[in-house]
Amino acid sequence: MKRIAIDMDDVIADATQKFCDIYQAEFGTKISKHDFIGKEFFDVVPHAHQSYVHEYHFRKGFFQNLHIIPHSQEVIYKLSKKYEIFVVSAAMEFPYSLNEKYDWMKENFSFISWHNIVFCGDKSIIKADYMIDDRLKNLKNFEGKAIVFTAPHNLRDEYEPFTRANNWKEVEKLLL
Amino acid sequence: MKRIAIDMDDVIADATQKFCDIYQAEFGTKISKHDFIGKEFFDVVPHAHQSYVHEYHFRKGFFQNLHIIPHSQEVIYKLSKKYEIFVVSAAMEFPYSLNEKYDWMKENFSFISWHNIVFCGDKSIIKADYMIDDRLKNLKNFEGKAIVFTAPHNLRDEYEPFTRANNWKEVEKLLL
Repeated sequence: MKRIAIDMDDVIADATQKFCDIYQAEFGTKISKHDFIGKEFFDVVPHAHQSYVHEYHFRKGFFQNLHIIPHSQEVIYKLSKKYEIFVVSAAMEFPYSLNEKYDWMKENFSFISWHNIVFCGDKSIIKADYMIDDRLKNLKNFEGKAIVFTAPHNLRDEYEPFTRANNWKEVEKLLL
Repeated sequence: MKRIAIDMDDVIADATQKFCDIYQAEFGTKISKHDFIGKEFFDVVPHAHQSYVHEYHFRKGFFQNLHIIPHSQEVIYKLSKKYEIFVVSAAMEFPYSLNEKYDWMKENFSFISWHNIVFCGDKSIIKADYMIDDRLKNLKNFEGKAIVFTAPHNLRDEYEPFTRANNWKEVEKLLL
């Protein structure tokens, strides 16, 4: 059975939307995902807010109650019949995220066993046949087939060499 | 730089001793590591206690304040000058362990960055050149060089095919 390593944030869990929601609640300014095109979160807020918003991901609760990326549950469930699925998150940077991500997986992807969840810092340690991820740093040294999952920030030239899936329906077409 | 994946429990952190300490505190019976030779923890307690002690590892606090396995800090520090070190723990079975293990690493192995820590369920996902572990299930499908680190429970015939290190001084001789 071939193995797929699937990222969490902005691939199955909508971390960018949570960022936008917190920013709007705190500063009264609505930022949309469209504003993130080709940019990181610190590029879409005023310079004076950059170091402040950098702390959002370190807050207790940030990774709780994230929305599910559309169709990720149904497509991953179908994939799990043909492939070995591992959910692999670079969670180690954010200590509070460990239990929050564990609970989120249990609540939203209960068909994925704890055996198949990985929290790491550097994904170069991952051995799999496919990797679905929104980050260049995770994909570029991957030895298997890398699939970039579209998030606004990764609509950039340097992602061009990778096969791109714009949504989970496209992943389904690619892999099933 | 070649990469070494190093296990936590009973390789750098003395989980077996914690088990013995809790059992003695609760039942008044001293069990020593010698009693574990070739056995799992549930084989060394009376049948009536087996399912009860199985819960020890799931308790909040079990993975806090574990003693450090002798010489692991100094030898791993030396190894880190020549190898890329990843500490890889099958922590996912025990949700409370995630933060406790993270904090333990920070306290006792502060020279190992969060980039190089992995919490997983199934270590077949790990890509490395060497794996140092006390468990057959982790070593047997590893594609690199597997080194069994002696713990009382693994003094069994089925570990014979592996290179064995009885302590960290022996790891030093093997790899430096």
